[in-house]
Amino acid sequence: MRFDVCTLFPEMFESYLGQSILKRAIDRELVSVHRWDFRDYTDDKHNKVDDRPFGGGPGMLIRCQPVFDCVEAVRQVDDENDEPDELISLTPQGERLDQQLAAELATRKRVILLCGRYEGFDERIRLGLKPREVSIGDFVLNGGEVAAMVVIDSVVRLLPGVLGDETSSKYDSFSESGLLEYPQYTRPREYRGMTVPEVLIGGNHEEVARWRAEQSLQRTKERRADLIQQQSQDDAG
Amino acid sequence: MRFDVCTLFPEMFESYLGQSILKRAIDRELVSVHRWDFRDYTDDKHNKVDDRPFGGGPGMLIRCQPVFDCVEAVRQVDDENDEPDELISLTPQGERLDQQLAAELATRKRVILLCGRYEGFDERIRLGLKPREVSIGDFVLNGGEVAAMVVIDSVVRLLPGVLGDETSSKYDSFSESGLLEYPQYTRPREYRGMTVPEVLIGGNHEEVARWRAEQSLQRTKERRADLIQQQSQDDAG
Repeated sequence: MRFDVCTLFPEMFESYLGQSILKRAIDRELVSVHRWDFRDYTDDKHNKVDDRPFGGGPGMLIRCQPVFDCVEAVRQVDDENDEPDELISLTPQGERLDQQLAAELATRKRVILLCGRYEGFDERIRLGLKPREVSIGDFVLNGGEVAAMVVIDSVVRLLPGVLGDETSSKYDSFSESGLLEYPQYTRPREYRGMTVPEVLIGGNHEEVARWRAEQSLQRTKERRADLIQQQSQDDAG
Repeated sequence: MRFDVCTLFPEMFESYLGQSILKRAIDRELVSVHRWDFRDYTDDKHNKVDDRPFGGGPGMLIRCQPVFDCVEAVRQVDDENDEPDELISLTPQGERLDQQLAAELATRKRVILLCGRYEGFDERIRLGLKPREVSIGDFVLNGGEVAAMVVIDSVVRLLPGVLGDETSSKYDSFSESGLLEYPQYTRPREYRGMTVPEVLIGGNHEEVARWRAEQSLQRTKERRADLIQQQSQDDAG
Protein backbone atom coordinates (compact mmCIF):
# COMPACT_ATOMS: atom_id res chain seq x y z
CA MET A 1 0.00 0.00 0.00
CA ARG A 2 1.15 3.49 -0.84
CA PHE A 3 0.50 6.75 1.05
CA ASP A 4 1.26 10.17 -0.44
CA VAL A 5 1.20 12.92 2.17
CA CYS A 6 0.88 16.49 0.83
CA THR A 7 1.85 19.04 3.46
CA LEU A 8 3.75 22.22 4.25
CA PHE A 9 5.77 20.28 6.85
CA PRO A 10 7.06 17.06 5.28
CA GLU A 11 9.87 16.89 7.85
CA MET A 12 7.37 16.56 10.66
CA PHE A 13 6.91 12.90 9.65
CA GLU A 14 10.59 12.00 9.70
CA SER A 15 10.94 10.36 13.10
CA TYR A 16 7.40 8.98 13.05
CA LEU A 17 8.26 7.02 9.91
CA GLY A 18 11.59 5.88 11.32
CA GLN A 19 10.31 3.95 14.34
CA SER A 20 8.73 0.70 15.39
CA ILE A 21 5.97 -1.06 13.43
CA LEU A 22 5.81 1.51 10.66
CA LYS A 23 9.56 1.45 10.05
CA ARG A 24 9.51 -2.34 9.84
CA ALA A 25 6.54 -2.30 7.46
CA ILE A 26 8.36 0.21 5.23
CA ASP A 27 11.63 -1.77 5.35
CA ARG A 28 9.72 -4.90 4.36
CA GLU A 29 8.02 -2.98 1.51
CA LEU A 30 4.53 -3.68 2.83
CA VAL A 31 3.82 0.03 2.81
CA SER A 32 5.46 3.17 1.44
CA VAL A 33 4.90 6.74 2.60
CA HIS A 34 5.88 9.53 0.21
CA ARG A 35 5.92 13.14 1.27
CA TRP A 36 5.23 16.18 -0.92
CA ASP A 37 5.67 19.83 -0.06
CA PHE A 38 3.01 22.25 -1.39
CA ARG A 39 5.75 24.88 -1.39
CA ASP A 40 7.58 23.05 -4.19
CA TYR A 41 4.56 23.67 -6.45
CA THR A 42 3.83 27.34 -5.89
CA ASP A 43 4.11 29.65 -8.91
CA ASP A 44 4.48 32.66 -6.62
CA LYS A 45 7.78 34.42 -7.14
CA HIS A 46 8.26 34.83 -3.38
CA ASN A 47 7.45 31.15 -2.88
CA LYS A 48 4.28 31.95 -0.94
CA VAL A 49 1.59 29.31 -0.57
CA ASP A 50 -0.87 31.32 1.52
CA ASP A 51 -2.79 34.57 1.38
CA ARG A 52 -5.29 36.56 3.45
CA PRO A 53 -8.98 35.58 3.44
CA PHE A 54 -11.47 37.56 1.36
CA GLY A 55 -13.93 39.31 3.65
CA GLY A 56 -11.35 39.74 6.40
CA GLY A 57 -10.60 37.74 9.52
CA PRO A 58 -7.48 36.44 11.23
CA GLY A 59 -4.84 34.18 9.77
CA MET A 60 -3.96 32.94 6.32
CA LEU A 61 -5.42 30.40 3.91
CA ILE A 62 -3.59 27.98 1.64
CA ARG A 63 -4.09 29.06 -1.98
CA CYS A 64 -5.60 26.86 -4.69
CA GLN A 65 -2.74 26.81 -7.17
CA PRO A 66 0.00 25.05 -5.14
CA VAL A 67 -2.46 22.42 -3.93
CA PHE A 68 -4.04 21.65 -7.32
CA ASP A 69 -0.59 21.49 -8.96
CA CYS A 70 0.85 19.33 -6.17
CA VAL A 71 -2.01 16.82 -6.32
CA GLU A 72 -1.78 16.62 -10.10
CA ALA A 73 1.96 15.98 -9.88
CA VAL A 74 1.46 13.29 -7.25
CA ARG A 75 -1.15 11.58 -9.39
CA GLN A 76 1.19 11.53 -12.37
CA VAL A 77 3.81 9.55 -10.53
CA ASP A 78 3.83 6.09 -11.98
CA ASP A 79 2.95 3.39 -9.58
CA GLU A 80 3.02 -0.35 -10.07
CA ASN A 81 -0.76 -0.39 -10.09
CA ASP A 82 -3.26 1.63 -12.09
CA GLU A 83 -6.05 1.67 -9.53
CA PRO A 84 -7.53 5.07 -8.79
CA ASP A 85 -6.31 6.67 -5.60
CA GLU A 86 -8.39 7.73 -2.62
CA LEU A 87 -7.84 11.47 -2.07
CA ILE A 88 -8.43 12.44 1.55
CA SER A 89 -8.47 15.86 3.14
CA LEU A 90 -8.01 15.93 6.92
CA THR A 91 -10.51 18.38 8.40
CA PRO A 92 -12.59 18.57 11.59
CA GLN A 93 -15.61 18.98 9.29
CA GLY A 94 -15.23 15.54 7.68
CA GLU A 95 -16.72 12.11 8.28
CA ARG A 96 -15.37 10.54 11.46
CA LEU A 97 -12.46 8.12 11.32
CA ASP A 98 -13.40 4.88 13.03
CA GLN A 99 -12.21 1.28 12.90
CA GLN A 100 -14.55 0.54 9.98
CA LEU A 101 -13.19 3.43 7.89
CA ALA A 102 -9.63 2.37 8.74
CA ALA A 103 -10.45 -1.15 7.52
CA GLU A 104 -11.95 0.27 4.32
CA LEU A 105 -8.84 2.36 3.65
CA ALA A 106 -6.65 -0.68 4.28
CA THR A 107 -8.16 -2.23 1.12
CA ARG A 108 -6.94 0.68 -1.06
CA LYS A 109 -3.74 0.47 -3.07
CA ARG A 110 -3.05 4.17 -2.77
CA VAL A 111 -4.21 6.94 -0.42
CA ILE A 112 -3.29 10.62 -0.88
CA LEU A 113 -3.55 12.69 2.31
CA LEU A 114 -3.94 16.49 2.15
CA CYS A 115 -2.80 18.27 5.31
CA GLY A 116 -4.13 21.80 5.83
CA ARG A 117 -2.47 24.46 7.97
CA TYR A 118 -3.15 28.00 9.21
CA GLU A 119 -6.85 28.83 8.81
CA GLY A 120 -7.22 26.00 6.29
CA PHE A 121 -7.62 25.61 2.54
CA ASP A 122 -9.32 27.92 0.06
CA GLU A 123 -12.84 26.47 -0.29
CA ARG A 124 -12.28 25.81 -4.01
CA ILE A 125 -9.79 23.07 -3.15
CA ARG A 126 -12.72 21.15 -1.69
CA LEU A 127 -15.05 22.07 -4.53
CA GLY A 128 -12.55 21.35 -7.31
CA LEU A 129 -10.58 18.34 -6.08
CA LYS A 130 -13.55 16.79 -4.26
CA PRO A 131 -11.47 14.96 -1.66
CA ARG A 132 -13.11 12.62 0.80
CA GLU A 133 -13.11 14.73 3.98
CA VAL A 134 -12.05 12.83 7.09
CA SER A 135 -11.98 14.01 10.69
CA ILE A 136 -10.21 12.24 13.53
CA GLY A 137 -12.41 13.96 16.13
CA ASP A 138 -14.19 17.06 17.42
CA PHE A 139 -11.09 19.05 18.22
CA VAL A 140 -8.91 21.46 16.31
CA LEU A 141 -5.28 20.65 15.55
CA ASN A 142 -2.49 22.92 14.36
CA GLY A 143 -2.63 21.20 10.99
CA GLY A 144 -3.53 17.95 9.29
CA GLU A 145 -0.11 16.36 9.83
CA VAL A 146 -0.78 14.64 13.14
CA ALA A 147 -4.21 13.57 11.85
CA ALA A 148 -2.49 12.03 8.82
CA MET A 149 -0.23 10.06 11.18
CA VAL A 150 -3.33 8.79 12.98
CA VAL A 151 -4.85 7.61 9.69
CA ILE A 152 -1.60 5.91 8.64
CA ASP A 153 -1.16 4.31 12.09
CA SER A 154 -4.69 2.90 12.22
CA VAL A 155 -4.60 1.60 8.62
CA VAL A 156 -1.11 0.13 8.52
CA ARG A 157 -1.71 -2.29 11.39
CA LEU A 158 -4.58 -3.85 9.45
CA LEU A 159 -2.43 -4.72 6.42
CA PRO A 160 -1.55 -8.41 6.16
CA GLY A 161 1.92 -9.17 7.51
CA VAL A 162 2.48 -5.86 9.29
CA LEU A 163 1.89 -7.04 12.87
CA GLY A 164 4.23 -9.73 14.07
CA ASP A 165 1.39 -11.97 15.10
CA GLU A 166 -1.34 -12.16 12.45
CA THR A 167 -4.07 -12.51 15.05
CA SER A 168 -2.89 -9.60 17.11
CA SER A 169 -5.26 -6.90 15.79
CA LYS A 170 -8.26 -9.25 15.88
CA TYR A 171 -8.88 -8.83 19.61
CA ASP A 172 -8.30 -5.09 19.81
CA SER A 173 -11.10 -2.79 20.95
CA PHE A 174 -13.72 -2.23 18.17
CA SER A 175 -12.44 -5.23 16.24
CA GLU A 176 -14.41 -8.38 15.45
CA SER A 177 -16.50 -8.30 18.62
CA GLY A 178 -17.30 -4.57 18.31
CA LEU A 179 -16.67 -4.27 22.06
CA LEU A 180 -13.93 -2.81 24.23
CA GLU A 181 -11.06 -5.12 25.04
CA TYR A 182 -10.98 -7.15 28.26
CA PRO A 183 -8.38 -6.39 30.96
CA GLN A 184 -5.05 -8.16 30.64
CA TYR A 185 -2.41 -9.11 33.18
CA THR A 186 1.18 -10.27 33.02
CA ARG A 187 3.79 -11.30 35.57
CA PRO A 188 4.26 -11.00 38.49
CA ARG A 189 1.15 -12.58 40.02
CA GLU A 190 1.18 -9.96 42.72
CA TYR A 191 2.39 -6.39 42.37
CA ARG A 192 2.01 -3.88 45.19
CA GLY A 193 -0.76 -5.97 46.71
CA MET A 194 -2.71 -6.28 43.47
CA THR A 195 -3.19 -9.84 42.27
CA VAL A 196 -3.98 -11.44 38.94
CA PRO A 197 -7.54 -12.90 38.79
CA GLU A 198 -7.41 -16.64 39.62
CA VAL A 199 -9.21 -17.66 36.44
CA LEU A 200 -6.32 -16.40 34.26
CA ILE A 201 -3.83 -18.55 36.14
CA GLY A 202 -5.95 -21.71 36.31
CA GLY A 203 -5.16 -22.91 32.80
CA ASN A 204 -8.79 -23.66 31.87
CA HIS A 205 -9.03 -22.14 28.41
CA GLU A 206 -12.81 -22.28 28.29
CA GLU A 207 -13.16 -20.43 31.59
CA VAL A 208 -10.59 -17.86 30.49
CA ALA A 209 -12.51 -17.26 27.26
CA ARG A 210 -15.80 -16.89 29.17
CA TRP A 211 -14.28 -14.50 31.72
CA ARG A 212 -12.80 -12.37 28.97
CA ALA A 213 -16.07 -12.19 27.04
CA GLU A 214 -17.89 -11.18 30.23
CA GLN A 215 -15.30 -8.54 31.12
CA SER A 216 -15.39 -7.16 27.62
CA LEU A 217 -19.16 -6.86 27.68
CA GLN A 218 -19.29 -5.41 31.18
CA ARG A 219 -16.61 -2.82 30.44
CA THR A 220 -18.37 -1.80 27.25
CA LYS A 221 -21.69 -1.49 29.11
CA GLU A 222 -20.11 0.71 31.76
CA ARG A 223 -18.14 2.94 29.43
CA ARG A 224 -19.65 2.78 25.98
CA ALA A 225 -23.23 1.53 26.05
CA ASP A 226 -23.61 3.21 22.62
CA LEU A 227 -21.41 0.51 21.06
CA ILE A 228 -23.78 -2.22 22.23
CA GLN A 229 -26.86 -0.36 20.97
CA GLN A 230 -25.14 0.16 17.64
CA GLN A 231 -24.31 -3.52 17.42
CA SER A 232 -27.92 -4.58 18.07
CA GLN A 233 -29.01 -2.21 15.31
CA ASP A 234 -26.40 -3.64 12.93
CA ASP A 235 -27.49 -7.17 13.76
CA ALA A 236 -31.14 -6.28 13.25
CA GLY A 237 -30.50 -4.37 10.01
CA MET B 1 2.73 24.42 30.56
CA ARG B 2 4.69 21.21 30.88
CA PHE B 3 4.07 17.84 29.20
CA ASP B 4 5.86 14.67 30.27
CA VAL B 5 5.47 11.86 27.75
CA CYS B 6 6.22 8.34 29.01
CA THR B 7 6.75 5.93 26.13
CA LEU B 8 8.83 3.12 24.70
CA PHE B 9 9.55 5.30 21.65
CA PRO B 10 10.69 8.73 22.81
CA GLU B 11 12.47 9.33 19.50
CA MET B 12 9.19 9.14 17.62
CA PHE B 13 8.42 12.67 18.85
CA GLU B 14 11.69 14.21 17.66
CA SER B 15 10.63 15.78 14.36
CA TYR B 16 7.12 16.52 15.57
CA LEU B 17 8.58 18.69 18.34
CA GLY B 18 11.03 20.36 15.98
CA GLN B 19 8.54 21.95 13.58
CA SER B 20 6.16 24.84 13.18
CA ILE B 21 3.89 26.13 15.95
CA LEU B 22 5.08 23.65 18.56
CA LYS B 23 8.75 24.39 17.95
CA ARG B 24 8.10 28.12 18.28
CA ALA B 25 6.08 27.62 21.47
CA ILE B 26 8.92 25.55 22.93
CA ASP B 27 11.57 28.06 21.84
CA ARG B 28 9.55 30.83 23.48
CA GLU B 29 9.21 28.73 26.66
CA LEU B 30 5.42 28.77 26.54
CA VAL B 31 5.43 24.99 26.67
CA SER B 32 7.95 22.23 27.37
CA VAL B 33 7.69 18.59 26.33
CA HIS B 34 9.85 16.09 28.22
CA ARG B 35 10.19 12.50 27.11
CA TRP B 36 10.79 9.46 29.31
CA ASP B 37 11.55 5.91 28.24
CA PHE B 38 9.94 3.10 30.28
CA ARG B 39 12.94 1.00 29.31
CA ASP B 40 15.21 3.21 31.45
CA TYR B 41 13.23 2.13 34.53
CA THR B 42 13.03 -1.62 34.14
CA ASP B 43 14.64 -3.76 36.83
CA ASP B 44 14.80 -6.72 34.44
CA LYS B 45 18.36 -7.88 33.86
CA HIS B 46 17.66 -8.30 30.12
CA ASN B 47 16.12 -4.83 30.01
CA LYS B 48 12.70 -6.24 29.16
CA VAL B 49 9.61 -4.12 29.75
CA ASP B 50 7.01 -6.59 28.47
CA ASP B 51 5.82 -10.12 29.12
CA ARG B 52 3.21 -12.59 27.87
CA PRO B 53 -0.40 -12.27 29.10
CA PHE B 54 -1.73 -14.60 31.79
CA GLY B 55 -4.45 -16.81 30.33
CA GLY B 56 -2.83 -16.85 26.90
CA GLY B 57 -3.45 -14.84 23.76
CA PRO B 58 -1.32 -13.06 21.19
CA GLY B 59 1.21 -10.32 21.81
CA MET B 60 2.90 -8.86 24.83
CA LEU B 61 1.84 -6.54 27.67
CA ILE B 62 3.84 -3.79 29.31
CA ARG B 63 4.71 -4.83 32.88
CA CYS B 64 3.77 -2.86 35.99
CA GLN B 65 7.21 -2.25 37.43
CA PRO B 66 8.82 -0.08 34.71
CA VAL B 67 5.67 2.05 34.41
CA PHE B 68 5.14 2.63 38.13
CA ASP B 69 8.83 3.44 38.60
CA CYS B 70 8.91 5.74 35.58
CA VAL B 71 5.84 7.71 36.68
CA GLU B 72 7.21 8.04 40.19
CA ALA B 73 10.53 9.34 38.83
CA VAL B 74 8.76 11.83 36.57
CA ARG B 75 6.70 13.11 39.48
CA GLN B 76 9.80 13.65 41.57
CA VAL B 77 11.32 16.01 39.05
CA ASP B 78 11.21 19.45 40.54
CA ASP B 79 9.12 21.89 38.63
CA GLU B 80 8.70 25.61 39.18
CA ASN B 81 5.16 24.98 40.39
CA ASP B 82 3.81 22.61 42.98
CA GLU B 83 0.42 22.01 41.46
CA PRO B 84 -0.59 18.37 41.13
CA ASP B 85 -0.18 16.91 37.66
CA GLU B 86 -2.88 15.41 35.48
CA LEU B 87 -1.87 11.82 34.67
CA ILE B 88 -3.41 10.65 31.39
CA SER B 89 -3.33 7.23 29.79
CA LEU B 90 -4.08 7.14 26.06
CA THR B 91 -6.44 4.25 25.38
CA PRO B 92 -9.35 3.60 23.01
CA GLN B 93 -11.36 2.74 26.13
CA GLY B 94 -11.11 6.24 27.63
CA GLU B 95 -13.31 9.32 27.63
CA ARG B 96 -13.32 11.01 24.26
CA LEU B 97 -11.00 13.92 23.53
CA ASP B 98 -12.98 16.89 22.28
CA GLN B 99 -12.47 20.64 22.15
CA GLN B 100 -13.87 21.02 25.66
CA LEU B 101 -11.43 18.50 27.14
CA ALA B 102 -8.56 20.15 25.24
CA ALA B 103 -9.56 23.50 26.76
CA GLU B 104 -9.72 21.92 30.22
CA LEU B 105 -6.22 20.43 29.84
CA ALA B 106 -4.92 23.80 28.63
CA THR B 107 -5.62 25.15 32.13
CA ARG B 108 -3.27 22.58 33.74
CA LYS B 109 0.31 23.39 34.64
CA ARG B 110 1.52 19.86 34.03
CA VAL B 111 0.18 16.87 32.09
CA ILE B 112 1.83 13.43 32.13
CA LEU B 113 0.95 11.25 29.12
CA LEU B 114 1.30 7.45 29.28
CA CYS B 115 1.68 5.79 25.88
CA GLY B 116 0.91 2.08 25.68
CA ARG B 117 2.27 -0.30 23.06
CA TYR B 118 1.85 -3.93 22.00
CA GLU B 119 -1.31 -5.38 23.53
CA GLY B 120 -1.35 -2.60 26.10
CA PHE B 121 -0.62 -2.19 29.79
CA ASP B 122 -1.01 -4.69 32.62
CA GLU B 123 -4.43 -3.87 34.10
CA ARG B 124 -2.87 -3.03 37.47
CA ILE B 125 -1.30 0.08 35.96
CA ARG B 126 -4.83 1.42 35.54
CA LEU B 127 -5.93 0.18 38.96
CA GLY B 128 -2.86 1.42 40.81
CA LEU B 129 -1.94 4.70 39.13
CA LYS B 130 -5.57 5.64 38.39
CA PRO B 131 -4.78 7.72 35.32
CA ARG B 132 -7.50 9.65 33.57
CA GLU B 133 -8.12 7.52 30.49
CA VAL B 134 -8.45 9.48 27.27
CA SER B 135 -9.31 8.22 23.79
CA ILE B 136 -8.87 10.20 20.59
CA GLY B 137 -11.43 8.04 18.77
CA ASP B 138 -12.95 4.64 18.01
CA PHE B 139 -9.96 3.20 16.21
CA VAL B 140 -6.89 1.27 17.27
CA LEU B 141 -3.40 2.73 16.88
CA ASN B 142 -0.03 1.01 17.07
CA GLY B 143 0.58 2.80 20.34
CA GLY B 144 -0.29 5.87 22.33
CA GLU B 145 2.43 8.02 20.80
CA VAL B 146 0.46 9.50 17.92
CA ALA B 147 -2.52 9.99 20.25
CA ALA B 148 -0.22 11.89 22.63
CA MET B 149 0.79 14.17 19.74
CA VAL B 150 -2.89 14.81 19.04
CA VAL B 151 -3.48 15.80 22.68
CA ILE B 152 -0.42 18.08 22.69
CA ASP B 153 -1.39 19.63 19.33
CA SER B 154 -4.97 20.39 20.37
CA VAL B 155 -3.98 21.78 23.79
CA VAL B 156 -0.95 23.86 22.82
CA ARG B 157 -2.84 26.04 20.35
CA LEU B 158 -5.19 27.13 23.16
CA LEU B 159 -2.38 28.45 25.38
CA PRO B 160 -2.14 32.25 25.44
CA GLY B 161 0.53 33.57 23.08
CA VAL B 162 1.10 30.35 21.12
CA LEU B 163 -0.80 31.28 17.96
CA GLY B 164 0.53 34.32 16.14
CA ASP B 165 -2.83 36.01 16.12
CA GLU B 166 -4.57 35.79 19.50
CA THR B 167 -8.00 35.58 17.92
CA SER B 168 -7.05 32.86 15.50
CA SER B 169 -8.36 29.85 17.41
CA LYS B 170 -11.61 31.63 18.33
CA TYR B 171 -13.27 31.00 14.96
CA ASP B 172 -12.13 27.39 14.51
CA SER B 173 -14.69 24.61 14.24
CA PHE B 174 -16.17 23.70 17.69
CA SER B 175 -14.90 26.93 19.23
CA GLU B 176 -17.05 29.71 20.69
CA SER B 177 -19.98 29.17 18.33
CA GLY B 178 -19.98 25.37 18.79
CA LEU B 179 -20.51 25.07 15.02
CA LEU B 180 -18.37 24.05 12.06
CA GLU B 181 -16.36 26.81 10.45
CA TYR B 182 -17.68 28.72 7.41
CA PRO B 183 -15.96 28.34 4.01
CA GLN B 184 -13.06 30.68 3.32
CA TYR B 185 -11.58 32.01 0.09
CA THR B 186 -8.38 33.77 -0.84
CA ARG B 187 -6.93 35.17 -4.08
CA PRO B 188 -7.38 34.90 -7.00
CA ARG B 189 -11.05 35.85 -7.41
CA GLU B 190 -11.40 33.19 -10.07
CA TYR B 191 -9.53 29.89 -10.21
CA ARG B 192 -10.32 27.29 -12.85
CA GLY B 193 -13.76 28.80 -13.37
CA MET B 194 -14.60 28.86 -9.64
CA THR B 195 -15.30 32.32 -8.27
CA VAL B 196 -15.27 33.85 -4.80
CA PRO B 197 -18.79 34.67 -3.49
CA GLU B 198 -19.58 38.34 -4.22
CA VAL B 199 -20.44 39.13 -0.61
CA LEU B 200 -16.86 38.45 0.51
CA ILE B 201 -15.49 40.97 -1.98
CA GLY B 202 -18.11 43.71 -1.40
CA GLY B 203 -16.46 45.12 1.70
CA ASN B 204 -19.68 45.26 3.76
CA HIS B 205 -18.54 43.80 7.07
CA GLU B 206 -22.04 43.29 8.39
CA GLU B 207 -23.08 41.31 5.31
CA VAL B 208 -19.89 39.27 5.48
CA ALA B 209 -20.56 38.43 9.13
CA ARG B 210 -24.16 37.44 8.35
CA TRP B 211 -23.13 35.28 5.37
CA ARG B 212 -20.49 33.51 7.46
CA ALA B 213 -22.91 32.83 10.32
CA GLU B 214 -25.44 31.41 7.84
CA GLN B 215 -22.84 29.24 6.09
CA SER B 216 -21.56 27.98 9.42
CA LEU B 217 -25.07 27.02 10.54
CA GLN B 218 -26.02 25.46 7.20
CA ARG B 219 -22.85 23.40 6.99
CA THR B 220 -23.29 22.20 10.56
CA LYS B 221 -26.92 21.24 9.83
CA GLU B 222 -25.88 19.27 6.75
CA ARG B 223 -22.92 17.50 8.28
CA ARG B 224 -23.28 17.51 12.04
CA ALA B 225 -26.86 18.09 13.13
CA ASP B 226 -25.82 16.48 16.44
CA LEU B 227 -23.75 19.57 17.33
CA ILE B 228 -26.82 21.81 17.04
CA GLN B 229 -28.95 19.47 19.15
CA GLN B 230 -26.21 19.35 21.75
CA GLN B 231 -26.00 23.13 21.80
CA SER B 232 -29.76 23.53 22.37
CA GLN B 233 -29.48 21.08 25.26
CA ASP B 234 -26.53 23.01 26.71
CA ASP B 235 -28.44 26.29 26.37
CA ALA B 236 -31.52 24.79 28.00
CA GLY B 237 -29.54 23.13 30.78
